[in-house]
Formats: sequence, C-alpha cells, structure tokens
Amino acid sequence: MTIADRWLLPDGMDEVLPPQASRMEELRRRLLDLYYRWGYDQVMPPPAEFLDSLLTGTGTDLDLQTFKLTDQLTGRMMGATADVTPQVARMDAHSLRREGPVRLCYCTSVMRASADPYQGGRSPVQVGVELFGHAGLGADSEIIHLALASLAAAGADEMHLALGHIGIYRSLVEAAALDRDQERALFAALALKSPGEIERVVTASVSDPALAAMLMALGELHGDVNVLERARDVLAGAPATVTAALDELDALQRGVRARFAVSLYVDLAELRGYQYHTGMMFAAYVPGYGHALAKGGRYDDTGRAFGRARPATGFSMDLKQLATLAEATPAPGAILAPAVADDALRDAVSALRQQGERVIQALPGQRTGPAAHGCDRRLELIDGRWQPTALTQETSA
Amino acid sequence: MTIADRWLLPDGMDEVLPPQASRMEELRRRLLDLYYRWGYDQVMPPPAEFLDSLLTGTGTDLDLQTFKLTDQLTGRMMGATADVTPQVARMDAHSLRREGPVRLCYCTSVMRASADPYQGGRSPVQVGVELFGHAGLGADSEIIHLALASLAAAGADEMHLALGHIGIYRSLVEAAALDRDQERALFAALALKSPGEIERVVTASVSDPALAAMLMALGELHGDVNVLERARDVLAGAPATVTAALDELDALQRGVRARFAVSLYVDLAELRGYQYHTGMMFAAYVPGYGHALAKGGRYDDTGRAFGRARPATGFSMDLKQLATLAEATPAPGAILAPAVADDALRDAVSALRQQGERVIQALPGQRTGPAAHGCDRRLELIDGRWQPTALTQETSA
Repeated sequence: MTIADRWLLPDGMDEVLPPQASRMEELRRRLLDLYYRWGYDQVMPPPAEFLDSLLTGTGTDLDLQTFKLTDQLTGRMMGATADVTPQVARMDAHSLRREGPVRLCYCTSVMRASADPYQGGRSPVQVGVELFGHAGLGADSEIIHLALASLAAAGADEMHLALGHIGIYRSLVEAAALDRDQERALFAALALKSPGEIERVVTASVSDPALAAMLMALGELHGDVNVLERARDVLAGAPATVTAALDELDALQRGVRARFAVSLYVDLAELRGYQYHTGMMFAAYVPGYGHALAKGGRYDDTGRAFGRARPATGFSMDLKQLATLAEATPAPGAILAPAVADDALRDAVSALRQQGERVIQALPGQRTGPAAHGCDRRLELIDGRWQPTALTQETSA
Repeated sequence: MTIADRWLLPDGMDEVLPPQASRMEELRRRLLDLYYRWGYDQVMPPPAEFLDSLLTGTGTDLDLQTFKLTDQLTGRMMGATADVTPQVARMDAHSLRREGPVRLCYCTSVMRASADPYQGGRSPVQVGVELFGHAGLGADSEIIHLALASLAAAGADEMHLALGHIGIYRSLVEAAALDRDQERALFAALALKSPGEIERVVTASVSDPALAAMLMALGELHGDVNVLERARDVLAGAPATVTAALDELDALQRGVRARFAVSLYVDLAELRGYQYHTGMMFAAYVPGYGHALAKGGRYDDTGRAFGRARPATGFSMDLKQLATLAEATPAPGAILAPAVADDALRDAVSALRQQGERVIQALPGQRTGPAAHGCDRRLELIDGRWQPTALTQETSA
C-alpha cells in the first residue's frame, strides 16, 4: 500500500498516492455499479451535521468516535461524520419519505476521533448499502448476499462469515430484568468470553436458575453452524423471541450456503462493534486480515427520531482496506507527445485521447523521458504523420 | 437540485439525494477519466491534518475557512481539509518527490467553516488538477485548456474566461515599497474597484508620481482582450516583470481563443478569492451562475515548506455546482422481479444483472408496484421461462 511517511500526518489520517488511489477509484466504480444493478440509489451525506441529529439513538461508542466542531454560523455543536449509516437512515425517514422498500448506497470519506479497533484507521472511505422498509428475512438475505458479492468483486476468493443476533442476548437480559449496571457488567463479561467472569456476574444478578443457566451458556454458543442446534436445546426455555431469532439465523445460513462457498461461524454472544443493531448481525472476513472487511446487520427504527420508524438492514466496508485485496493490475501504458508546437501534433494527440489512449504532453525544456512518466510509446513524425511508436532501449531513458 | 429541507442540517452542509447524487457520480467519472487521458494520476488527501502543515504559506483566508479539531491522540490542533491544493502540493514535494513534470488530480469532499462567497456552500466536493515542476506557459496553457474542457464535459455550451496576473500588482507594490498596512489598504480599495478610494490610498502612500499613476490606472485595466494593449501603454514604465506578465497573458489568451469559442475578459486588478497564487490566475464562468465554476492559476513554491520548492499551476471546481449544469438524463429503466422463491427466477435475475440490467427484487409482502421503483418492465413466467415484459397500464400501479 502506497502511504506516505507519517511524520507529517496525524496517526491514522492517511493520504493515498498513485497507483493505490486509482485502484480505489476502480473498485469504487465496480461496487457502486453492482449496487446500482441491484436497485440501490446513490446518496451523498454532508461531511458534518449538528450533533443532536447525528448521534440520535446511536449510543456512546459513536459519540466517542465523532470529532466535535463549533458551527460559527449558529454557535451550535456539530460532529464530523464518523459513520454514514445514521445519516442515510435520516435521509430515508425525513428527506425521501418514500413508500415501500427503499434501497440506498453511498461511498464517502469519514473521520474518526479514535481508531476503531474493529474498523481500522481514522480516515476510512466508507462504502455500503442500506435497505429500508422491509422487516423480513428477504431483506437481510439480500444484504448478506451483497456484502459477500462486494468482497468477491474486490478480489477475495476465500471468505468467512460470522453470524449473530442481538435479539437473543436482549431477550434474555429483559427476561432476567437486569438493571443497567448489571447489564453492563454482563456485556463486558461476554465481550471477554470469560466463563468465570460471566458466571460471577450472572450468579450475582440473576435469581431465576433457568435464566441464569441460559445466560451462562450464551458465552459458549459459538462455533460452526451446529451451534444453532445446540442453542435450540440450551435455550429451549427462553422467550419466544429467542426461538424466532434462531429460526432467522438458520434460514439465513441456509441461503448463504446455497449461493456462496463461504465458511460459516455462528456466535450468539458477539456484541462488540455493533452500534445500533436490533436483529441479525454479521461480519465477513478474508484470510490475512485481522478484522472484518464488511460488517452489518438489522437496525430497525433508527429513523424514529426523524419522524418515521422504519425497518432497516445494511452493511458497510472501508474502501481503503478493500482496495488492498485487489491484485495490482499492470499499468495500461501511455504515449509521450514531444514538446513541439505543431497543429498536426495537437490534432493527433486529441484524436488518440478521444480513442481512450493516455497521452502525456512533454513540456518545453522537460528533461525526463517517456519511461519516467509511465509511457511505453512516443509520438513520432513518420512519413509526414504523427504516429505512436514503441520505445526502443535508447529512447526510453 | 434535490436537496432536503434545511431545518435539520447546518447551513451550507447539504446532503445530495437521488437522482442528483448519481449525476454527480457520472460527472466525477467523466472528469477523472478526462484527466487520466491527459496523464494526471489520482491522489486522495486525508480529511484532516495538523494545522501547521495544512496552513503553511497559504494566508489567513484559508485559516478562517478551516474547521479546527483537537487530535485526541496527540493533543495537537488539526484542521479539516478546506482546500485540497496545499495538500496535493505537499504530496508532490514531500511524498512523491518525482523528477520532471508531475500531474495529479483529485475529487474529494471538503468542509469550510464559513461559506466562501466565491466558491458556494460549506461542503463542496472539490475536483481539480495540479501540474508541478514546470514554470512555463505550456503548463499554464494545459491547465486552462483542461478547465474549459471540464466545463464542456459537464455540459456548458457557453463559457466566459477571466484572466489576470497577480505579478503585475505585486511588482508595482514592491516598486512603490508599500508597507503592510498601506498594501492592505490598496488591496481593499482595488477589491472595491472604487476609483476615489484607490486614488486616496495611492496619494497617501506613493510618492513616485509615475508609480502612483500606474497603480491608479490598475483599477481601470479590465475589459476585453484590448485591455492588454492599453496596459502596455499605461504600464510602459513599470518593472520588467510587469511586461513579462503582460506577454504571458497575451500568449495565453491567443492559445485559448485558437481552441475554444469562449468570451475573454481580462482583469489586471482582480485579486479576491486567490489564496496562494504567484502568477497568472483565471476563473471560468457559465451564464446563469453568479460565481466562477472553475478557478485556478499559478502558485509556485508552495512546496518549499515541505522541503522542495516547485513550480505549480492548477485549478479546482465544486462538483456539486458543476453537476447542476448537466441536463437530467431520462432514467434508463429497470426490471421488477416478483417475490417468488424459485431457483429459475434467481438465475434469470442474476443473468440480467450480469448483462448490465438493473433488476429490483420485490420482497415478500411488498405493496409498492414496479412504477414506484422506477421499473418499466417486470419479470414474468411465460412458457416456462422468466422473461422481462413491458408494463401495461394495470400492472404498473
């Protein structure tokens, strides 16, 4: 990856140089074209908004990641966009107000005050899709499909998909009537996946022995798809919402396995890095990357604060990371035009560019040769016509 | 232009909705492809940098437009990018360090603390090119050519080009040995184009009667290309750098008129809105827009602070404004696939998308029909095969 020395730049605020920037541009186009063909309309959120609309209903994680700015025009606090999803939910609920399923996609640079350990640097180029207005499995399935298709389009040939469902944890916590401090302690213990710590918290806060047993088992419910069968046994006495969540996950994993050669991992206690989710959640991994390259899930009702509660599901990725997946394609070559003032030369250059060729005009006094500018040909006057000719050893210096 | 109600968003921080966002995306591609064919390599600057590198040598205007942020990792002040040009100059001088002419282009969202009256809102998508390493007219001429070609690519069919040269004003000010306060007073008077005010300032600060006469004349030196001839008379006694600047402008305007049907305006006293320029400056206008759509010029030696003084020339535009030039193209149509679980349907949808068609999958229970989703066809099972069929009156509801 072509990234400059860091002494001048803040940590995680990277510049992207050639040729990596054009790889990102190419992948950006491939992904937005893919989403277009699936019916997703592009939107562009503003780079900053008032804090009270930006952070509505999204929790403290996003608050900590958001750079705060003072709006000189109003004196109000603004936040620089750290995550596009809540902005797109606002567009669906407030700006567009369309009926039926609404499909939106975006690709935009965001900035984060702290580096998110689950999402890489502080200046990702966030690309993703959101599907609003449909609460069913069909929407979730389409989103997971598009996430995996996106990684494949970026050049991944081996993928791992981790599936979870925040509803299982939430239903158990609700049934156990945990207060806020107890819930936080349990959340932290599950995040550590520490059986001893989970047992300590559960024993201290949950009186119902059946519920306590189920919460303690939750920390162990991760592994291949057979985890879903195990969960049905272990969580047989749980509220009906838990069974419904397991049914959903089962249907989703079947759909994924029918269409993608992907290795599946189910984790019913994975809660970290999800900010505003309400249902199924997923993360897609590629070997060689220590964190998920695509992450998403269902986040119903985020639009409520903007006047309209809507079902929603989607995912996002960092184009900067994603573009490192693609093989470097050899540069397609270019033609150097000599620094000669001649109408015929100008016409020849113009015609070649119109045919899609890259033609670099040498400037008077220029000392660098064609090879220094990535040129494999040069324009030469042969038989009274300007023609591209391949470089020989001596002309390429 | 499709922009949402403003009550939720800070003034000038606009979101872009469909279909305007896809028009911007299309124009982005057209422009970056144009620059690629001319030999410009794309770069992506970070969204924020430390203030001391961001504002090096750029003057107070840019400082006032830059949102300030505290970097939580270092405690140092950062600025959100308000203008990409100094960042690209840094890349050329510090990160790339290539020999010979270096051509770079970019397209990125920036944000401004105050609305720049010469550049529109506070959240432009800045797109532009920079040519480093060549001090001659050939580079300036290429830049002006690309600016006009960009407006033409965006759909402008009538263009006005304003040409100026900061060197004329600077040379006269230097010859008159004005101190900083006097220079500021003169700058403000020229900006107002008020003959009385210019005369008052010049009479108070310039003792040499010939120089005083030239500075007073400067405010009148604007109009069609004949202004250049008038300037040669009026400024005949000026330093040689003034004559050289007039020669440059004359060569540039001849080159432009030979290749573009553009109306030319010369203004030797126009100084507003140029932040770091050192030579020729230009602005391109399109009827119906109150401000320039493309603006640029020469800004040599900006890279000095990063270890390498380099000649530089370039221009930039706001993609948000530029995309309003384009005619709305009729939507290309799409196909609605019914909410039926059928492998043959899934295969048909997949095949159509691979052919480039836009296919929107209806979701179970969906009540909105094809027309609500921009579809002009729907997939129907005819003779055992899923086929796209045109909507009839009753099916489009």
